[in-house]
Amino acid sequence: MAKAKVVIVGGGFAGVFAAKELRRKIGDEADIELINKDNYFVFQPLLPEVAGGGINSSDAITSLRLLLKKVQVRLAEVIKIDFDNKVLTVLQGTRRMPVEISYDHLVLAMGQSADLSRFPGLTEHALTMKYMGDAFTLRNHVIRCLEHADVAQVPEIKKRLLTFLVVGGGFSGVETVGEVKHLIDKSLRYFPNISPEEVKVKLIEFADRILLELPESLGVYAQEQLEKHGIEVMTGAGVNSATGNSAELTDGQIIPTKTLVATIGTGPNKLVEKLGLEMQWGKIKVDRCMRVPGKENVWALGDAALIPMNDEPSERHHFAPPTAQFAVREGKQLGANLRRVLKGWELKEFAYVSQGALASLGASKAVAEVNGIKLKGMLAWLLWRSFYLSFLPGFVTKVRVLLNWILHSFVPRNISLIEAPTKPATKYMHFRKGDNVFDRGMIADGFYTVMEGGFELVYEDPETGEKVQRTYGPGEHFGERIILGRAQRTGRVRATENSICLWIARDDFKRFAKGLPMLDEYFQNYIAEKFGPEALAEEDEGSQ
Amino acid sequence: MAKAKVVIVGGGFAGVFAAKELRRKIGDEADIELINKDNYFVFQPLLPEVAGGGINSSDAITSLRLLLKKVQVRLAEVIKIDFDNKVLTVLQGTRRMPVEISYDHLVLAMGQSADLSRFPGLTEHALTMKYMGDAFTLRNHVIRCLEHADVAQVPEIKKRLLTFLVVGGGFSGVETVGEVKHLIDKSLRYFPNISPEEVKVKLIEFADRILLELPESLGVYAQEQLEKHGIEVMTGAGVNSATGNSAELTDGQIIPTKTLVATIGTGPNKLVEKLGLEMQWGKIKVDRCMRVPGKENVWALGDAALIPMNDEPSERHHFAPPTAQFAVREGKQLGANLRRVLKGWELKEFAYVSQGALASLGASKAVAEVNGIKLKGMLAWLLWRSFYLSFLPGFVTKVRVLLNWILHSFVPRNISLIEAPTKPATKYMHFRKGDNVFDRGMIADGFYTVMEGGFELVYEDPETGEKVQRTYGPGEHFGERIILGRAQRTGRVRATENSICLWIARDDFKRFAKGLPMLDEYFQNYIAEKFGPEALAEEDEGSQ
Repeated sequence: MAKAKVVIVGGGFAGVFAAKELRRKIGDEADIELINKDNYFVFQPLLPEVAGGGINSSDAITSLRLLLKKVQVRLAEVIKIDFDNKVLTVLQGTRRMPVEISYDHLVLAMGQSADLSRFPGLTEHALTMKYMGDAFTLRNHVIRCLEHADVAQVPEIKKRLLTFLVVGGGFSGVETVGEVKHLIDKSLRYFPNISPEEVKVKLIEFADRILLELPESLGVYAQEQLEKHGIEVMTGAGVNSATGNSAELTDGQIIPTKTLVATIGTGPNKLVEKLGLEMQWGKIKVDRCMRVPGKENVWALGDAALIPMNDEPSERHHFAPPTAQFAVREGKQLGANLRRVLKGWELKEFAYVSQGALASLGASKAVAEVNGIKLKGMLAWLLWRSFYLSFLPGFVTKVRVLLNWILHSFVPRNISLIEAPTKPATKYMHFRKGDNVFDRGMIADGFYTVMEGGFELVYEDPETGEKVQRTYGPGEHFGERIILGRAQRTGRVRATENSICLWIARDDFKRFAKGLPMLDEYFQNYIAEKFGPEALAEEDEGSQ
Repeated sequence: MAKAKVVIVGGGFAGVFAAKELRRKIGDEADIELINKDNYFVFQPLLPEVAGGGINSSDAITSLRLLLKKVQVRLAEVIKIDFDNKVLTVLQGTRRMPVEISYDHLVLAMGQSADLSRFPGLTEHALTMKYMGDAFTLRNHVIRCLEHADVAQVPEIKKRLLTFLVVGGGFSGVETVGEVKHLIDKSLRYFPNISPEEVKVKLIEFADRILLELPESLGVYAQEQLEKHGIEVMTGAGVNSATGNSAELTDGQIIPTKTLVATIGTGPNKLVEKLGLEMQWGKIKVDRCMRVPGKENVWALGDAALIPMNDEPSERHHFAPPTAQFAVREGKQLGANLRRVLKGWELKEFAYVSQGALASLGASKAVAEVNGIKLKGMLAWLLWRSFYLSFLPGFVTKVRVLLNWILHSFVPRNISLIEAPTKPATKYMHFRKGDNVFDRGMIADGFYTVMEGGFELVYEDPETGEKVQRTYGPGEHFGERIILGRAQRTGRVRATENSICLWIARDDFKRFAKGLPMLDEYFQNYIAEKFGPEALAEEDEGSQ
């Protein structure tokens, strides 16, 4: 009998621990594959410290391949799931030819996405703190604001550059505001034209106190610590809207700022949203064993799932909370349950009681509640760090991270603005005579305008062989139909001589072609004329 | 009397050492400003090791502000120099309003740029190794190729992904190919579907041996070392052209590859090219004291300058070579000369004899010639590393970097694909009623299409006050004239209500609007009609 194939989508705490536990328990009796859009696991609670420059980004992540020995790791994006035939469709590699993957059991662990759409301008202008790239971006953004403020000539602009707003007084917001302030404090002496009193760092929380997840005394202590470090904590306040230069609060106050970090607002993952599963509060409904009802061999856990903790759950606290601690436990339990199901044994329901909670406040301080015991200050902070170290794979890695932490506390903050070069949305691409630009079945990555040379569109007929349908010379273009219309490529586009195209990225082209009325009209007419009106899609589903 | 102001453009070895030496010698008697497009100094010889993941990017760079105490560091891009009035124009901060900076003495130290235009397709498809971002990009690119190859289904694509070509057998090419191979070797065990013999790493050099800068015996040793590590060294071969999927060699051979690293081809820096100075071999001609002839108080050094080493230079080796070693010496000498000129003393001519040369070969091996003594292997490598450590500012930083190096040799290579999120070329921007999008004198950063709301174009007349010239509603656009035409903004664009624009980045808009004949025609007509035919520029100089 062929081995069972278990496919896990998502490489966060939940997915990683499910894969690890299953591999440990099942030995070689199953094929396990984990699909993730990054090739590393992020220890998410450390993101604020990466943003503050307190640790290197490489010390907050671990390669999934290192972490998950004997698990096939696939760097890809899942675009479709066919539950009836048990097949996933992914984009990987050059991302243009969809690949299909079969499964016997499917585990959905892709978490939730940031959703700021309730607040006009926040999606466009706020920074978030969900992925490693976000932490990286925030760190660079803060340093860039200091660089610009140091040479700014207009007082109004300088003020905007030196006002930093963090929205949300939960763990993520509190840790982020603490780390941002710490980064600024440690860096200011290198910016001779900025005086400390010009810098404003504010935390905004809608409730009447911060850290609602912790007992009130710890929340109060945390607020005192933040204020002691010069952070203004505004409770009972929210944000209404934002532009690139200001934020409007719920009381109508407009705060000029270049930096708005939103740690609020989550919604379902984009793929999860499209699956047609039963949802509640933006999460997939599952039973107490984390099975998705009505779908064969489909499981869900972590932030993506709503896992009941009793048999008649009705209120929010009857379900597992979206914390790393629970995700780890859910992963382990799911891994064990998968083994049980493969062995034909009985499943066990998920049950776990929180061991406590912990929040870092920056500057080697933290607050914690562990098994009912409250801790604060340096001791809580050490506990926090030890928990992370215990999680890292391999002794040498632990030593490296530990040493880096110690060294980092002695050396000045690294204020170098290291950025990967921006990938341009347009580029010139060279093709050699005979090169294929598109093959049949591909998804368009962009829109191509011929600058030099020529191309031909070829159809392959099983009976009559290849047939050239049309050619494209300088000034002509291809790719528009499969971006603006509904189809995947039905033929092949091939260079008939050495050629150069101007390429514009898919999403940019789409926004621009839809945004500028003149272009929209041109392409509507063009597609209808060349391919018939049925090629125009209402919604761009087929090719997304 | 006011202090003399010395402005140095460029933060490489030459510029940094000039600033340091001048500050050290002159005390507080001059204002020194260094302008650079990054806020850090790159220890360029370490870039290949960053690309290979042997060290962290943060261990190969140092903040300019840390390095240059009491020197004003400005993160900006110089766009114009007026030698007659001794004024520089820079873009900084939001980069839209040009800022003017006066100088008494100006030092040009902006190095050279990569120039691959002689080889069709290389500018577009080759990776380079000049900046920190390049090293970062190459490392990620190599890891991405391994990730994709591990799950690739088409053998032809897998082969392309696993073929790595480095062009140029000088220091940079040799070190890069060694580090790339080392990264792959140390990482392969995490990619179960790639076998070592599928990986091809090639070095291509046009001359008949590599490392022409070193004695032949060391060049031969280096080649043996590279071949021992499984790198194919092809001498007497060059590259003709490239596409995204292959490279063509000078003998007509086509090598399918996704990775072409070009360490060849330099040309003048873009700004230097526009200055109208006397040039030779792409460098600014200077006298033996590094003064630019015919321009008052203008100096040039480093890779940007052609510094004669005797009074009648004619051949290339009569000029200072473009190495870090010489740049450091030139910087120190120029700093000392600046002090002499400020004190009214006599200048000294630049004179220096090379102390030798050093190339790292990856895997803790190197070759070196120091004062005529040849060294190779581990010893040369240790010498190489010590040289770098001695350069780092501060004892703790030295210890941190040293410890990181030691730890790095024990832990597995970090194969996490950390990338800053791509900045999209298009985005939606929100504006509040009354917000200014553009002010008079600004340079356009992009093209704006109104999606919601409205804007007005306002002129300020000193006598009659503000005058609204026109308004823009949904579907209308602004910004095209100052991108495609010749002018800076002559008026102010202001939101008349809460509004949303679709923004497309300047360069992307320009390429697209020029590349697509239909758009080009539309904008030509539009600009001529709205602003008169004189608003159309032949060349886009005014706003670059």
